[in-house]
Amino acid sequence: MTIKTLLSSLSKIEDSQDFEIKGWVAANRGNEKIRFVTINDGSSIDNLQLVIKGSDIAKFDIDSLNLGTSLFAKGKLFLTPKSPQPIELVVSDLKIYNLNTPDFPIQKKEITIDFLREIPQLRHRTNLFRTIMIIRNALTYEIHKYFQEHDFINIAAPIITSNDGEGAGETLNVESDGKEMFFKQKAFLGVTGQLHAEAYASGFKKVYTFAPTFRAENSHTSRHLAEFWMIEPEVAFYELKDVILLADDLLKTVISNVLKNYQSEMQFLDLLKDNKLLSALNKFINTKLTIMEYKDVIPVLQKHKSSFEEKNITFGMDLASEHEKFISEKIVNGPVAVINYPKELKAFYMYQNPDKKTVAAFDLLVPGIGELIGGSQRESDYDKLCNRLKELKIPQEPLQWYLDLRKYGYAGSSGFGIGFERLVMYVTGASNIRDVIPFPRTPGSIKM
Amino acid sequence: MTIKTLLSSLSKIEDSQDFEIKGWVAANRGNEKIRFVTINDGSSIDNLQLVIKGSDIAKFDIDSLNLGTSLFAKGKLFLTPKSPQPIELVVSDLKIYNLNTPDFPIQKKEITIDFLREIPQLRHRTNLFRTIMIIRNALTYEIHKYFQEHDFINIAAPIITSNDGEGAGETLNVESDGKEMFFKQKAFLGVTGQLHAEAYASGFKKVYTFAPTFRAENSHTSRHLAEFWMIEPEVAFYELKDVILLADDLLKTVISNVLKNYQSEMQFLDLLKDNKLLSALNKFINTKLTIMEYKDVIPVLQKHKSSFEEKNITFGMDLASEHEKFISEKIVNGPVAVINYPKELKAFYMYQNPDKKTVAAFDLLVPGIGELIGGSQRESDYDKLCNRLKELKIPQEPLQWYLDLRKYGYAGSSGFGIGFERLVMYVTGASNIRDVIPFPRTPGSIKM
Repeated sequence: MTIKTLLSSLSKIEDSQDFEIKGWVAANRGNEKIRFVTINDGSSIDNLQLVIKGSDIAKFDIDSLNLGTSLFAKGKLFLTPKSPQPIELVVSDLKIYNLNTPDFPIQKKEITIDFLREIPQLRHRTNLFRTIMIIRNALTYEIHKYFQEHDFINIAAPIITSNDGEGAGETLNVESDGKEMFFKQKAFLGVTGQLHAEAYASGFKKVYTFAPTFRAENSHTSRHLAEFWMIEPEVAFYELKDVILLADDLLKTVISNVLKNYQSEMQFLDLLKDNKLLSALNKFINTKLTIMEYKDVIPVLQKHKSSFEEKNITFGMDLASEHEKFISEKIVNGPVAVINYPKELKAFYMYQNPDKKTVAAFDLLVPGIGELIGGSQRESDYDKLCNRLKELKIPQEPLQWYLDLRKYGYAGSSGFGIGFERLVMYVTGASNIRDVIPFPRTPGSIKM
Repeated sequence: MTIKTLLSSLSKIEDSQDFEIKGWVAANRGNEKIRFVTINDGSSIDNLQLVIKGSDIAKFDIDSLNLGTSLFAKGKLFLTPKSPQPIELVVSDLKIYNLNTPDFPIQKKEITIDFLREIPQLRHRTNLFRTIMIIRNALTYEIHKYFQEHDFINIAAPIITSNDGEGAGETLNVESDGKEMFFKQKAFLGVTGQLHAEAYASGFKKVYTFAPTFRAENSHTSRHLAEFWMIEPEVAFYELKDVILLADDLLKTVISNVLKNYQSEMQFLDLLKDNKLLSALNKFINTKLTIMEYKDVIPVLQKHKSSFEEKNITFGMDLASEHEKFISEKIVNGPVAVINYPKELKAFYMYQNPDKKTVAAFDLLVPGIGELIGGSQRESDYDKLCNRLKELKIPQEPLQWYLDLRKYGYAGSSGFGIGFERLVMYVTGASNIRDVIPFPRTPGSIKM
């Protein structure tokens, strides 16, 4: 049984119940008569306190236990409702696996997050990163669960692809050391699984990908990675409004389950954000999503243009991160789906609205992060797609397989992409995307 | 409600109950008085039969419905326990989304699997590939569920890495079009997430990856892909025997849940394999795993050397696929874990047994596939690891971070890798790995 399970089932525990644990020392306090050694087993931010008394202190060599020592302990549980910790283990046997060396970079002394970024292989052994990675795992599983319980099929879109996706050009290339090209043609790391997911939605109806994607963007912001995970649901028969509802329900369900099942971890994170994290997330869960037309966002931004670096605000402009955050933080004070963007700003495959100016796209903006989700209804008209490709000077031939989907009993479809690390940032309150993925990859940096 | 859900809850259905469905036409039969249109919605291999009568046939333009047409229908359900199908929908309203064009490559006529491999974007609209991909999804979710319910944390090992993993050298390289190296050093696509998973196991205790991995092997067999998904659990405090038990329990749990929850699909696949698939899988579930020492396998193979192309069978040889299959198919007649291989055959990080000749590795071999899982206990001794690297002429510096894990309260650990597509082959009976992943990547081939 893990510490997480033990602490969530205290009502079933009886005093003197036998218990065993394997884990790592988090603290070693006390005096020569009684010692308190707290253990973490990775299941929770919470530790279990071991109590070692009298001659057992010498027998089990408790003096030697330093921060991070791996050990096994067994004994009897006792509920301690009046103490800071609700339960403790009075030890009858203890085995040290390995002591930690004194040069372990993570010690009790104050340690900076910059320093920890230099040691991604060890930083999860701090309370902060342990907690973030526990929440990341929880979100991973909750997302799979949501889709599976809503009849979605997970599909593996290819990572290595001959299509460069949205035509944005910021791709990483794949080569082998051999003299010939391994794939006999130019090969890219996928920037999206959407086109392939659309092919599968036409037949499976509801599909989703959950996989790594790649951008060679040379940007060093706190919101960009060269390698990040994306979740891309795609649903045949869905129009824009359906897929916005799906995005909203997915986020609310997933976040509320995490808040319910990881209370210790979320309280710890809340403290780090001056108690503003939980209130913001609870507000998100309990507030109806605001939907705003792009054309109605522009006059609002114009009214506040003194707040922005980019003050030239006109219909047709792309919203910068400062504008996105302003809308969600200052105007809506919560999440907002901005819909129907000018078609020039968006990818070729988006549904062209009857106004001939906009496409049926949406961006879901949240406070603190800006864009968390981007999606659209897909264009179903073969000729309109071909014309749009021509306008954008994107070669049609490599995309012919995709265009042809429209011929074969096409039911229309809509979908979106969630940048998974941005979701983890939103839920954990982390302010740098490098801190929510175990081994971050950024321009010039691929440690390990 | 999907067709799958409908058919699994027939006992709760009442005659005349309202029902709606969106899906694609699988067949259109009948006469001018009554028409039977079967619909598939992607949730199951099973279809739902629509019944359209009298003047409604003309009103809803039923004559036009061809294979693959997308439509919406509503009406009333009627149980038909005496018919081949258990239930049907008598249609009161029907809307055609899009007819299929006559050049749709998948028609009722006989179609070869080779031809279907040329159209990965459409082949899931056949019964065979729809079923394989439904089972693939089921296995994906069951694997996540198993690990999550057993207190494992999913971790994202990096895809782009500066370590080339097992030192096998068959890596794909990552470059950007820019003049400088994007990552300022040589970058590979990961061949394994194990080293990174080990770092996380030291702290989280039980972790697993489920992610794409890559090999630039120039092999054109039915068992190799350049891009495939791997599941790699890693557990601190575990020794070889513990991790073999984990592998066995994982496979048995996952496969038996799939057999239970996907009976129609598994029966369809069983028919394609002359009714030998289900019996083999049920036998797997109900048979205790056999464990054989590598040193005991060699004399057995020597006794049967006339059966092999490679007849020079001695201690120290690597088992070829023909040997692996022979052991599981002819000797054990079921799955077998071969353990304690000569250290020369295995990677540097494996635990060196006291005999100084072998390492605590295991390969799990299954009939029809050969190696399904490979794993080991990891060496915990820092000096032994360094010496092994020297013997193998692998530079130590890039792996220093990994070696140092042994210093920091190291608890030992063990883990294994499952080639996910091989598992899908095993469960679906597919004989070519290209048929169990939506968009297969092999040397010279990256369609779409």
